[in-house]
Amino acid sequence: MSETKTLADWVLSSRIEHVPADVRHEARRALVNYLGCALGGSHDEAVDTAIRALGPYCGAPTAAILGRADRLDPLHAALMNGISSHVYDFDDTTPKNYMHPTSPVASALFAYASANPVSGHDFMQAFITGFEAEMRIGNAVYPAHYDVGWHITGTAGIFGAAIAIGKLLGLTRQQMIWNIGLAATQAAGIREMFGSMAKSLHPGRAAQNGYEGALLAQAGFTAGEHGLEGPRGFAAVQAATYDLSKITTGLDTEYELRANTYKPFPCGIVNHPTIDGSIQLHDEHHFTPRSIAAVRLRVAPLVMDLCNQTNITKGLQGKFSVYHGAAIGLVRGKAGIQEYTDAAVNDPAIKSVREHTTASGDPSITEDQAHIEVELTTGEKFTRFVEKSLGNIHRPLSDAQLDSKFRDQAILAISSVQAETVLSQCWKIDELENVASLVALTTPR
Amino acid sequence: MSETKTLADWVLSSRIEHVPADVRHEARRALVNYLGCALGGSHDEAVDTAIRALGPYCGAPTAAILGRADRLDPLHAALMNGISSHVYDFDDTTPKNYMHPTSPVASALFAYASANPVSGHDFMQAFITGFEAEMRIGNAVYPAHYDVGWHITGTAGIFGAAIAIGKLLGLTRQQMIWNIGLAATQAAGIREMFGSMAKSLHPGRAAQNGYEGALLAQAGFTAGEHGLEGPRGFAAVQAATYDLSKITTGLDTEYELRANTYKPFPCGIVNHPTIDGSIQLHDEHHFTPRSIAAVRLRVAPLVMDLCNQTNITKGLQGKFSVYHGAAIGLVRGKAGIQEYTDAAVNDPAIKSVREHTTASGDPSITEDQAHIEVELTTGEKFTRFVEKSLGNIHRPLSDAQLDSKFRDQAILAISSVQAETVLSQCWKIDELENVASLVALTTPR
Repeated sequence: MSETKTLADWVLSSRIEHVPADVRHEARRALVNYLGCALGGSHDEAVDTAIRALGPYCGAPTAAILGRADRLDPLHAALMNGISSHVYDFDDTTPKNYMHPTSPVASALFAYASANPVSGHDFMQAFITGFEAEMRIGNAVYPAHYDVGWHITGTAGIFGAAIAIGKLLGLTRQQMIWNIGLAATQAAGIREMFGSMAKSLHPGRAAQNGYEGALLAQAGFTAGEHGLEGPRGFAAVQAATYDLSKITTGLDTEYELRANTYKPFPCGIVNHPTIDGSIQLHDEHHFTPRSIAAVRLRVAPLVMDLCNQTNITKGLQGKFSVYHGAAIGLVRGKAGIQEYTDAAVNDPAIKSVREHTTASGDPSITEDQAHIEVELTTGEKFTRFVEKSLGNIHRPLSDAQLDSKFRDQAILAISSVQAETVLSQCWKIDELENVASLVALTTPR
Repeated sequence: MSETKTLADWVLSSRIEHVPADVRHEARRALVNYLGCALGGSHDEAVDTAIRALGPYCGAPTAAILGRADRLDPLHAALMNGISSHVYDFDDTTPKNYMHPTSPVASALFAYASANPVSGHDFMQAFITGFEAEMRIGNAVYPAHYDVGWHITGTAGIFGAAIAIGKLLGLTRQQMIWNIGLAATQAAGIREMFGSMAKSLHPGRAAQNGYEGALLAQAGFTAGEHGLEGPRGFAAVQAATYDLSKITTGLDTEYELRANTYKPFPCGIVNHPTIDGSIQLHDEHHFTPRSIAAVRLRVAPLVMDLCNQTNITKGLQGKFSVYHGAAIGLVRGKAGIQEYTDAAVNDPAIKSVREHTTASGDPSITEDQAHIEVELTTGEKFTRFVEKSLGNIHRPLSDAQLDSKFRDQAILAISSVQAETVLSQCWKIDELENVASLVALTTPR
């Protein structure tokens, strides 16, 4: 049994026509969420810096970076898409193995599609194939692989990018086997980089190197044929324990896209229940900030370890403050990118509510829960217990909520009129004659 | 104690003037050996294939590939130099941790120097600094890292390339720390690729990605600051056991260049004692092939496991035939690239001696030893026992032997007249005003 060869055969034979409708819809949701994140992050300092450093070494500028006017060669465009889509940690996440699965695959595909004609049909087929493959490889090595310190978005992600591009290139079976080997031997990215720009480099490099490996394999560059399962292959080298059957069991019947989740708020997930409940209270009662005398939170003890920051002045600090999370929910009824800027953190109304907020850890509250009590100056009290936070696999964002998340980010790069066109095109990406038209719409005018 | 910061400080302060003369000479020997290998491999199919695949994506062609007329951007030139210098597995090897240490560092440096003015002084300083750093990092994680299946030439090599280029770029301390982090998070390459072109991709990618990481760090792309020693850093993630003190102990007093060795023959090292002894017998007795009635070998049992191929017709098979090793030594008195071609394997004189050769495994013979008996048609017998094979750390190749190895390979890419100029320039590389002049001499006319 060679998992590498079984997977290669499946990649070659996979057809979008065999994919159930709900999975195809989930793939569209993943791409809407991805495009919003890529546009939102496209002008972050990490992207600017990478372009400044590597621009002078780029090839013929045949490809577009999502959300930017710069044009690079497709391989570097894939890198930049990967950085921008992950830099705010706002892209999709799967609770099964903690991958951010869309970024490596879609970053390579949109770069490819901006430089080469690809129908929406073929694009979606390649996306789903790459997504399913990388998730299965991630599942096979999780948790030992993640626990030791690998950033699984980089390591498993390169297989997704390689396979998606390889599928579009129409690799032969032999080339696909080499392609998987080349991904296995370039898989990299460690969690020690968390908190730095290098974290977002991981899906970027996965996209770029996976794409490059597919080109090498197509040209006849040989690689070991047991990249996944060999005694010195990816699984054996990068995981103390693993289960390779997770790569091949249920291919074409079980879909990992169904296990994907989308963050509603651009901050650490432990703050999400508090924000979620605060927004619910805002939407029901529309308190004015001045009317709020006190906010009392009961949260999982881990929240107090990770997000106990007070006296904050910077947007980034807001991500690590459960008090800020409660305040933006109660004052603005939302927690998007704009609620984590320096300006939002210093907004007097938000600051005032934040400073009237207290929190305590309660071991009876899970990390997916929060209890919020708002006391008004009138003495009136309102409470909300969040049992399962929004964005959880059991309470996924609706399509309309994904639209809203998309708009919130897209306008950081393009006009709201343009954003609406991109959004409507992305929901029907399968029908596009050429995905290049969608990428072109993301270029700032 | 942060090994990353200690190493960064050492890199910034290292000066060639403090390096003992014997170490500087060893660095020149490493570069002579490297340049021969890079020229010898420069027209291999692996290099042709990689250029065919990636050429269309390369940037402004400001850099030269050693031994070729093609020009690429410096990052891709580094990649190609890395592939060509390792593709015949004829580059240097250190018995301390099995790295091929020069390829990642020199491949990046020569690419850089072909596109940017660099004095021989600065080039050598950067080379020695990168070499010492990567070897120390390799020592720290060896053997657990190698044993589990990492190709240490790729994984530790990227640090050497990053540090050497970072030294030339004059990175600040903060940038050098990021540079080390970026190398840590891109370190890759698994032994499952041995026997395919992907093996030689490893030093190539190490050179390219190390170089690229240095450019990113210079531009301000941030990375984790504990890339080596952090709880999710390189050592913890890539080795079950490790000793970080090997990175920092004896900096500036102990030199890893002294532990480097150079292969005399382009085949598996277990055949080397047999070839070595056969050449000695040839040089002393000058048998004609027809005069040889029988050759009897007693070798380490491992040789019989690995190199027992008979009835061979291809050059590559010759590398795995101890019989071919004896035959080329006795017939030609040498075992260079030309003795492992299809033509050499089918040379009637070599074939005849090979077919009169027998071998037996003898547990009393070490892997560094061989016993050879030649019986002539006259009944006369000659024997030779090789106690320590040529190229061993205790019996290193002389400078003259390195010259001969260089010439043997260089003429595969350039004229013998040109080769002599390259050779003489490389021996005095420290004195060159601009190393670009040396690189230019390696371009075929």
